[in-house]
Amino acid sequence: MNLVILEPDEVAESGDVILTGRRAAHLTSVLKVTVRQQIRVGLLDGPRGVGTVERVSDGCVELQCRFDACAPRPPRVDLLLALPRPKVMRRLWAQLAALGVGRIILTNAERVERHYFDTHVLEPTSYRPLLIEGLQQAQDTWLPNVSVHRQFKPLVEDDLDSLCPDGARVVGDPGADRQLRQILPVSAADRILLAIGPEGGWNEFELGLLESHRFQRVGMGPRTLRTDTACIALLSVIHAMEQDGSE
Amino acid sequence: MNLVILEPDEVAESGDVILTGRRAAHLTSVLKVTVRQQIRVGLLDGPRGVGTVERVSDGCVELQCRFDACAPRPPRVDLLLALPRPKVMRRLWAQLAALGVGRIILTNAERVERHYFDTHVLEPTSYRPLLIEGLQQAQDTWLPNVSVHRQFKPLVEDDLDSLCPDGARVVGDPGADRQLRQILPVSAADRILLAIGPEGGWNEFELGLLESHRFQRVGMGPRTLRTDTACIALLSVIHAMEQDGSE
Repeated sequence: MNLVILEPDEVAESGDVILTGRRAAHLTSVLKVTVRQQIRVGLLDGPRGVGTVERVSDGCVELQCRFDACAPRPPRVDLLLALPRPKVMRRLWAQLAALGVGRIILTNAERVERHYFDTHVLEPTSYRPLLIEGLQQAQDTWLPNVSVHRQFKPLVEDDLDSLCPDGARVVGDPGADRQLRQILPVSAADRILLAIGPEGGWNEFELGLLESHRFQRVGMGPRTLRTDTACIALLSVIHAMEQDGSE
Repeated sequence: MNLVILEPDEVAESGDVILTGRRAAHLTSVLKVTVRQQIRVGLLDGPRGVGTVERVSDGCVELQCRFDACAPRPPRVDLLLALPRPKVMRRLWAQLAALGVGRIILTNAERVERHYFDTHVLEPTSYRPLLIEGLQQAQDTWLPNVSVHRQFKPLVEDDLDSLCPDGARVVGDPGADRQLRQILPVSAADRILLAIGPEGGWNEFELGLLESHRFQRVGMGPRTLRTDTACIALLSVIHAMEQDGSE
């Protein structure tokens, strides 16, 4: 845990916070914090800051927190992902939050099996702690906004423009020649919506519908990657381009 | 399976191959191949090609294979990795082979727990099938060369120059300002040795030893990533740069 994420309702107006449960256990048994020690904290969807340990008692750590004036910038990328199988999705949550995504839009596709939608991995009580784990790893505070759409066509035709109104849209397609760098704006102000298909890829109807809704196909190199590897790979390349662009 | 990997001793001089076991089962029950159908094949550490199905019988598929004149280029990147915990390493094998690495050099570090080396995940009988799974996914044929080094200092001082004699060397360091793109040669001919530390990072002695052996520190952006995510992220960024460079 590189940053302790605090929920807004945990922080008193004075900046005092009383931690119990897993975070307190981690602070006392792994980080072995002592009184007056300072640790990095972050307010969920808000600024980072510093918490000074005021008291450590059985299963409980009291902090006095001071927060930065500004919150970190929200991630620039949103992800439209054909739902992978539950085991893979379970592993992805923390990694996606660590890499930084604004929205995670999960959807159906021809090559997504229907029963993937019936898993508890899609319940907020399952994925929210995993997303927060990823934020604590990456020292970010922006919780990705998750939505699940069982129907692909209404999502793309009716909902996507309100979820992601502007910015560039790209869809990973192993057959495409153009690379991300040739398409994407390097200005860090523009948002990017990245669509990643299921194992086996989008079908032609799905690719066509995406293209008719402003998505541009981008190649992913000569290698065909598994969905989860492709997500991490493309998000990493976009973030690296962003850093190049902001130099 | 996007490519069926064949071991050299499986292919008769005539190009005939008799598959049994898992690959035959995959071809018959998942891909449902029929006689005269063509499938993509690849000779381990050699060229790709096309296999024409000659016969399908119970648990057995016979192919007549023709191979390209040239093998694909070997991956340009080698990876020096502080051994992650067995569960993470087990998941990484196929992903590393799919992303493409020439060598996987596993080593100790202060923040690597000693018992990590005692796992069966480091036995060739465990990891070789996982590496081949990654090659079959990515349609590559180059099996990464794996070596395990329980002592970091002798590895860096004595062995590394013969394992990776030339090319650029970079070590991921969350604190570094310079990005990969500012350091790496874009010429696709140069090799790159990428070092990734354990959870919690290399210690100062380890970083110093790497620096005194030609490694340059590169930042990994403002986010601290888990070892496995960092491996995939940095390899992806290097491969994307390579494609930019070869345009």
